[in-house]
Formats: sequence, structure tokens, C-alpha cells
Amino acid sequence: MAAYKVGYFVGSLARQSLNRKLSKALVQLAPPELEMTEIPFKDLPLYSYDYDADYPPVARALKRAIADVDAVLFVTPEYNRSIPGGLKNAIDWASRPWGQNSFARKPSGVIGASVGSIGTRSEEH
Amino acid sequence: MAAYKVGYFVGSLARQSLNRKLSKALVQLAPPELEMTEIPFKDLPLYSYDYDADYPPVARALKRAIADVDAVLFVTPEYNRSIPGGLKNAIDWASRPWGQNSFARKPSGVIGASVGSIGTRSEEH
Repeated sequence: MAAYKVGYFVGSLARQSLNRKLSKALVQLAPPELEMTEIPFKDLPLYSYDYDADYPPVARALKRAIADVDAVLFVTPEYNRSIPGGLKNAIDWASRPWGQNSFARKPSGVIGASVGSIGTRSEEH
Repeated sequence: MAAYKVGYFVGSLARQSLNRKLSKALVQLAPPELEMTEIPFKDLPLYSYDYDADYPPVARALKRAIADVDAVLFVTPEYNRSIPGGLKNAIDWASRPWGQNSFARKPSGVIGASVGSIGTRSEEH
């Protein structure tokens, strides 16, 4: 029986996404204590705070999916030294409305695969 | 006659966007040498490199709009210590396909307004 639920985001929406392949490998390699579930985001509209008073069903589903897991994992490429806009849009949705950040106190990690020499390195800190 | 064309992006899609108001003030305050034109991005789908071989009309229009200006200005709020996902998505579209980055050798600037105490500060460098 799974002891921990992990929700993962695949940052690339490409059909042959290398990061999707990586996510599948991670699911296969995960120990039985981890239950891995993908959290989709491709159907979200672009976020605006005009939605804060009444999130559309697809955004409610996103927040519910995050609430349902013990931790989140981002499996993502780097686009222009940051995460893809689509994934950022999902994070913006999940972090709102104000005071209802779905990522609050949610352990999270980031992993990525790339054929490029900088890997998936984003901003340096 | 305008000597320089400036294309500006308004990062927030909210109806009452403070940054849209800021952009309108900038247009009013701009010297006559600057011709200010908004570059819209709200109708772009989420980028994927599956589109690289054949960009949809809305993405071609984005790249053409950037090609048509001498400089670009981002008028944007900060969401989660970065730019909004929608704006990032527009940048991802404009920077591709590989070798056809619309921002290459294009002077650019960023400005923003916020009611929050950190202003529109994003990542620190």
C-alpha cells in the first residue's frame, strides 16, 4: 500500500517530450511506498486575478489534485532560463486565490532532462 | 513622425490591471519620437516545440509584431517571484523556432507597478 502520494507535473507539452519519458522512468523506478500521479495543466486558460472569485472547473481540479498529494515533483525542461510558460501558468493558478496557495507546506522537488549542454539549469542562485 | 517604434507587452490579463493603466500612462507620457504599440498575447496557446515546424497564425502575428518594432518594453506584475505564466508563454513562442529568436538584438526594458511592498521585484541577481 502506498504510504506517500506524489503528484508530478511534466513541464513540456510536446508529444515526444524527453521529460515525459523521464517521468515514466521515474514512475517505474519509484519504490512501492510512492504512488505517482500526473497533474495535468495543458487545458488551463492563462491566469488572471479576475478568476479569483470563481475559479473555472479545470483550475479547481488542479488545486484539488495538489491537495490530494503529499508532495509534488516538477519534471521539466528549461525554456529561456526558466520553466516553460505553461508550467508557470499552472503554478500561478495553484498559488491563488491569495491565502489559498496549494503549494503551502507541500514538499516539492524539481528534475529535468535535456539534450543541451546546460541541461535544464535555470536561473543561478 | 515617429523615429522609434516600441512594442509593449502588458503582463497582466486582468480587466482592471494596474500595469495596463501604467502602460496607458507611458503611452501618454512618451515623447513624439516614440510610437508605442501593444503586442497582445492572450490568445496564444501554450507553447510546445511540436509547433516549431508550422506556427499557428496567432504565433506568427506575435513574431511579426516584434519584428516590426525597434524595441520592446515589458510592463508587468510579478507573480510568484517571476513574470506571469502567460507572458512567459509569449516569450517562449517569440524565442522559437531555434535560430529565429524574435528578441535577438532587440533592445528591451521591463517596468512594473504593484500595490505590494516588494513592488514587482522578481528574482534577484
